[in-house]
Amino acid sequence: MPYHAPVPEYRFLLDHVVDFPKVAATDRFAEAAPDVVAAMLTEAGRVCEEVLAPLQRSGDTQPVRFENGVVRLSPGFAEAYRALSDGGFLRVSGPEAHGGLGLPITVATALNEMMSGACLASQLSPLMAQGQIEALDHHAPEWIKALYIPKLARGEWTATMNLTEPQAGSDVGAAATRAEPADDGTYRLTGQKIYITGGDNDFADNVAHLVLARLPDAPAGTKGISLFLVPKYIPREDGTPGARNAIRVVGIEEKLGLHASATCTLAYEGATGWLIGAPNKGMRCMFTMMNNARLGVGMQGIGVAEAAYQHALAYALERRQGATPVEGGTGAIVEHADVRRMLATMKAELFAARAVAFACAVAIDMETATGETGWAARAALLTPVAKAFGTDTGRALSDTGIQIYGGMGVIEESGAAQYWRDVRVSAIYEGTNGIQAMDLVGRKLADGGEAAQTLIDEIEAEAEAARGDLPDLAGPVWQAAEELREATEALVATGDLTDRFAGSVPYLRAVARVLGGHYHLRAARAEGGAGPRTALARVYVRRLLPEHAGLLAEARAGGADLYALSDEDLAA
Amino acid sequence: MPYHAPVPEYRFLLDHVVDFPKVAATDRFAEAAPDVVAAMLTEAGRVCEEVLAPLQRSGDTQPVRFENGVVRLSPGFAEAYRALSDGGFLRVSGPEAHGGLGLPITVATALNEMMSGACLASQLSPLMAQGQIEALDHHAPEWIKALYIPKLARGEWTATMNLTEPQAGSDVGAAATRAEPADDGTYRLTGQKIYITGGDNDFADNVAHLVLARLPDAPAGTKGISLFLVPKYIPREDGTPGARNAIRVVGIEEKLGLHASATCTLAYEGATGWLIGAPNKGMRCMFTMMNNARLGVGMQGIGVAEAAYQHALAYALERRQGATPVEGGTGAIVEHADVRRMLATMKAELFAARAVAFACAVAIDMETATGETGWAARAALLTPVAKAFGTDTGRALSDTGIQIYGGMGVIEESGAAQYWRDVRVSAIYEGTNGIQAMDLVGRKLADGGEAAQTLIDEIEAEAEAARGDLPDLAGPVWQAAEELREATEALVATGDLTDRFAGSVPYLRAVARVLGGHYHLRAARAEGGAGPRTALARVYVRRLLPEHAGLLAEARAGGADLYALSDEDLAA
Repeated sequence: MPYHAPVPEYRFLLDHVVDFPKVAATDRFAEAAPDVVAAMLTEAGRVCEEVLAPLQRSGDTQPVRFENGVVRLSPGFAEAYRALSDGGFLRVSGPEAHGGLGLPITVATALNEMMSGACLASQLSPLMAQGQIEALDHHAPEWIKALYIPKLARGEWTATMNLTEPQAGSDVGAAATRAEPADDGTYRLTGQKIYITGGDNDFADNVAHLVLARLPDAPAGTKGISLFLVPKYIPREDGTPGARNAIRVVGIEEKLGLHASATCTLAYEGATGWLIGAPNKGMRCMFTMMNNARLGVGMQGIGVAEAAYQHALAYALERRQGATPVEGGTGAIVEHADVRRMLATMKAELFAARAVAFACAVAIDMETATGETGWAARAALLTPVAKAFGTDTGRALSDTGIQIYGGMGVIEESGAAQYWRDVRVSAIYEGTNGIQAMDLVGRKLADGGEAAQTLIDEIEAEAEAARGDLPDLAGPVWQAAEELREATEALVATGDLTDRFAGSVPYLRAVARVLGGHYHLRAARAEGGAGPRTALARVYVRRLLPEHAGLLAEARAGGADLYALSDEDLAA
Repeated sequence: MPYHAPVPEYRFLLDHVVDFPKVAATDRFAEAAPDVVAAMLTEAGRVCEEVLAPLQRSGDTQPVRFENGVVRLSPGFAEAYRALSDGGFLRVSGPEAHGGLGLPITVATALNEMMSGACLASQLSPLMAQGQIEALDHHAPEWIKALYIPKLARGEWTATMNLTEPQAGSDVGAAATRAEPADDGTYRLTGQKIYITGGDNDFADNVAHLVLARLPDAPAGTKGISLFLVPKYIPREDGTPGARNAIRVVGIEEKLGLHASATCTLAYEGATGWLIGAPNKGMRCMFTMMNNARLGVGMQGIGVAEAAYQHALAYALERRQGATPVEGGTGAIVEHADVRRMLATMKAELFAARAVAFACAVAIDMETATGETGWAARAALLTPVAKAFGTDTGRALSDTGIQIYGGMGVIEESGAAQYWRDVRVSAIYEGTNGIQAMDLVGRKLADGGEAAQTLIDEIEAEAEAARGDLPDLAGPVWQAAEELREATEALVATGDLTDRFAGSVPYLRAVARVLGGHYHLRAARAEGGAGPRTALARVYVRRLLPEHAGLLAEARAGGADLYALSDEDLAA
């Protein structure tokens, strides 16, 4: 499918909406000068447009296959991985000591979005590589870093993360894969892992698996989980791949979408692995990778949202139906109020979700650069919101895209349905969006709501500052923020976690709604309160922001009504 | 997939929520006694459970094929059609004079839902037959009725409706298929029709196509459209199929879902047809069929919603993850607050959508039985709501079903994704849900809002009556109805249709939201204000109904903000 990398939009957001200049002003990221970032985004955009976008449809119709125990990638995907590694996509934020470019996560975030928009199936393995590089950089011994990171960064080896087992999905702590210590300091892993993205391929020299498993006599649950690096081929002394490790590809899944991405079941049959991090601290290490991946999955949603929007808009500008309702119009369906409502809504939501995700990335970078706990708390707060809101936006916009296409939307050839199929899983993996919401109202409000209230303070301060020039936007944003503050206080005051969890998803959505208003207001102010960004902000504030009230009512409703229905009542 | 026909739920709704006893009390439907209806529903449910449900997955994996110009149905679907016709599904509300059972549309509506829930792809052709029987009964000359209706009702012949052409989708009036009068009183049709559901098959003796086309010198647009009956085989004098008509199956579409349903492109190459109704009045005749079909498509959504709910609930009751949050619980995921929220929401939405649809069916039956304009206006008002809310509910619940399944949800084998794929088109065909909303705020408010206000009066009266016993439910329902009244008045006062259309979709959703509250309140009152229906009503009123406020704000926002963004702004 044609795809146009929205580089100018990134630059506007970075410069005017999410305070990226603060990142570039730190010593740590001194090299992220505007011209460097601009060049990186432009070149990356070109690769996405030229190399990845043509694979979007072909990867769907020529799915990855499993033949005689070997995973055969869809045509062009090996070359695409090479182009991505050549383009620096895998190492953009990796450590300079091991071949990374050391650029901000914010830049990687834009790259992740572009890959996703051009061809979502092509972004999954790169995202795993980015995350594994980060996890190894933080937790692996030096020799492992030196051996693995450069090869991962150059795309010679690929990476996976192995969490899920049939009985251990959202409850990762139920993992049963065992790791027995061997005499030479390595471990032997035995067990089965499912849903392993890119679990095998037929082009990379090696595949490095990060695997959660249990040491003998480990405590039950997440406190007994350790992390291991288990390569497909055991590296020789010189670093080249040696003997085949005892890992068997059992099969690949037949999925709703992402047909060009291999979702593998892997059997570890006494496979040799190396412990990463401390024994029984595997969850902590894996979270380094998962937090990175959560934002990256959020960008999957946003990338697909952008692509679905471009695709639907092109159709709406071209397709003619009915008498034109606009004087002097062409009769294209974009001129009809309801189609225009859909498109304007898409554009407004896309802006909001992207701004939230970039704000999250900036917070991560500022935490890295400054070590300040305030930035750490901001990053922790925004990560689940960026993941869930980003993926929900991808789902919603690809759904609207189908609707704009009408009957053509459900004909696979149009490509509209594929966006919707491909992006669906993004609301499930890397922690379902329900898990994200529980994380938000559980762990992320465990500070008594301080991080949330600090953010709300900023939203209200911005709205106060805008009240003179843009009262019709500033007023509702301030009011919504205030209602969010009250709901946050109410949730924090709720000792019963079940009551909080009963409202967690609508609460997360309300946070996203209010943040969207905030960033739209910033964008409007950046253009002086007149122009297309201000018009788009009006669409958002008048039409979409009012939803926050209903969401907050549900967020505060507690769990009693839900449990008043017994299991039998639900089944009646 | 296993499917359990919700017959007891239908009976509760009919008896206590949607005033079906009024229908049964009319002379016209005197035969629809409770025991007759109950027996019909029970037997129909059995067919759906035993014959259709096993075809749900197999129809997806063994799609309909197009071979050498012939449409080959998925295995089992021909036999299923036979079982449905034997079970009376096609003739339940058909005219008794021609082999129909003459039962209320309300009964057919329940049957349509059950077919859809058991196997949506199996319901499409029966729905076409029902609609064609009704259209012929109203508009065809007697000899056509006598020839076609019995064969359609017995399932010997199948039926289609042919509206869409490549350039004529939502704008049906742009149809270009020509009909030239022949000397013998028949017509020769030439043109191409697309998206023809069940456009051909390899089991029925004949296929009767209702086709929109233009007579020579017909006026432009919908005012120049006539309706023709064009059979695949031209009946002989004795009614048996004779010579092959000049209709060619060009191909079938590769679709997102409904793989067992043939979506055909048909070329009419001078095919012989008979005029149905008056010249240039084809749209009016087709609307007889389409209004029936719109409610039937609403039931597709509700059927899939029921099936997806049953499927997800069964999984949630069985799947164990994490520590149980419920004392003495089993650890099944149904016990987790967010999963319980999803399931309770599904059940509450399902009840609401089904009640709206059944209320619409009752209004149609009362219109038929009494001829009263009030019932006609009620039926006209509720049809677009039933269609859009029903299908939106099917989409939402099948989506939530995937989410409850987690990773398994996107593995096709689980069946969760198929519900979601199959039901997606229901929001598009028979008039997109956007078109339904435009119909609601356009034609259906063209009476100055009288029909809507009458309905709102009833909602408020019910709430007033319930205020003593169920103040926590009655209060919010009354308040929401009052806000709906104000918004309706505001829309009616808006002379500019573009402003109305800009808010039409959120307005329709708000109408559905408020109606849902109304019917939940009725259900709660029917059990005396205590019990599982009251608990479910609380879930709806406290958690879902508050959404109406945001919807009404958007409904009233007007179009100016949308058009303040130029086409170029949208593309920027």
